[in-house]
Amino acid sequence: MSRPAITLAARALPDLPEITAGSDLAALIAGAGIPMDDGDVVVVAQKVVSKAEGRVVRLEGVRPSARAIELAQDQRHDPRAVQVVLDESSQVLRAERGVLICRTRHGLVCANAGVDASNASESGTVILLPHDPDASARELRARLGALTGRRPAVVIGDSFGRAWRHGQSDVAIGCAGLAPLQDWRGRLDRQGRALNATWIAIADQVAGAADLVRAKDSGEPVVVVSGLDPHITPEDGPGARSLIRPPEEDLFR
Amino acid sequence: MSRPAITLAARALPDLPEITAGSDLAALIAGAGIPMDDGDVVVVAQKVVSKAEGRVVRLEGVRPSARAIELAQDQRHDPRAVQVVLDESSQVLRAERGVLICRTRHGLVCANAGVDASNASESGTVILLPHDPDASARELRARLGALTGRRPAVVIGDSFGRAWRHGQSDVAIGCAGLAPLQDWRGRLDRQGRALNATWIAIADQVAGAADLVRAKDSGEPVVVVSGLDPHITPEDGPGARSLIRPPEEDLFR
Repeated sequence: MSRPAITLAARALPDLPEITAGSDLAALIAGAGIPMDDGDVVVVAQKVVSKAEGRVVRLEGVRPSARAIELAQDQRHDPRAVQVVLDESSQVLRAERGVLICRTRHGLVCANAGVDASNASESGTVILLPHDPDASARELRARLGALTGRRPAVVIGDSFGRAWRHGQSDVAIGCAGLAPLQDWRGRLDRQGRALNATWIAIADQVAGAADLVRAKDSGEPVVVVSGLDPHITPEDGPGARSLIRPPEEDLFR
Repeated sequence: MSRPAITLAARALPDLPEITAGSDLAALIAGAGIPMDDGDVVVVAQKVVSKAEGRVVRLEGVRPSARAIELAQDQRHDPRAVQVVLDESSQVLRAERGVLICRTRHGLVCANAGVDASNASESGTVILLPHDPDASARELRARLGALTGRRPAVVIGDSFGRAWRHGQSDVAIGCAGLAPLQDWRGRLDRQGRALNATWIAIADQVAGAADLVRAKDSGEPVVVVSGLDPHITPEDGPGARSLIRPPEEDLFR
């Protein structure tokens, strides 16, 4: 029952130029001189996808609501930035210690609805999550395919805080061509016993692995991961949306 | 500001023999024929560490309490297995749909307090988490050092369910010689802006990366990860215990 040893390898693309609205991210990735294969996964940091898509808001044009002003006072934040967070949220779950924990309109649960001022190109601006990160991943995959003749999978990663544990871990907020979950439930272990609770968040682990090879202060938003061939799919698949656990099924929070 | 490209590589050790109480896990790992260096991280699945440490309970010797019998009825479980879960828990957070979500005596929050019947060597037995997984990691590291003349770091990984998201991701429950968290808070991004919320759960992401290269039904509980030199420490360090977020600081659940 021996399988050939899988080697996972992850390598950051060299510095990309500053990404702005309309940057051709796929062309920059394809032109970076790292060979890419059909079985690879190109993991792209959310922030550059958002920038290329123009998901940047100038705070000077934002009129904060009474609720944003109230939350901002408690949190010592710019009320206009809080307004942007509220606009991106379907629900504010917590507002404590300078952080708003929100459910985004995509269903993602994260700090400040993913709205971020760090790594913004200009001061006075904040960056939002992509409007539809799975669609962003599909589009990037299609463009990379057209440019390179290869069809690597694409994951869009972002750093999320977690319940119960310190620190952040990258998760997949968008995904195309990679099976986001691997289901071993009902399969048997070596003793023929059911592997009960084994349902693996492949795409999140790929995003986390990619995060290990790039420094947060550097211009290395893209990592190519190889060795994941068994999880690559010709179709784009269900996307990272399928990783979102509906609140009513959530026993872990 | 260009750094040399980091390549992360992860490779599963070939099949190990069945591990039982008293198995010399370090000797089996050292003898597996995979070269290991000081900058590597040896990621070991919790289950084989537990087995080698004899953390296996025969259910026939367990007398379930009234509470275990009651919980087992609701959950359709063996009341003796539920008793073992209760013995390992400091708190039962949820008891629903066949799963007990518990805080273990270590402070870890996971299903069934980490008590598992899958991959047990004998039926009628369950496997517990190591008594002190950080101590297990330190001991493995010391033994690997003595046997190989190298001092790779050691991570003990286990698959945990998460709040908000489907599927499981491997996390570090034990760690020696790897900085479990990397703190970028207060550091500056390329525009000189503070990287506010950037505190990275390195050890958890390493555990997740290692999980990507081994199949759950195979005898591949050990993965060697290279390319993490910047996170390796000569001292064993604070361990995976430092990844546990105290409930009173937890905004994410």
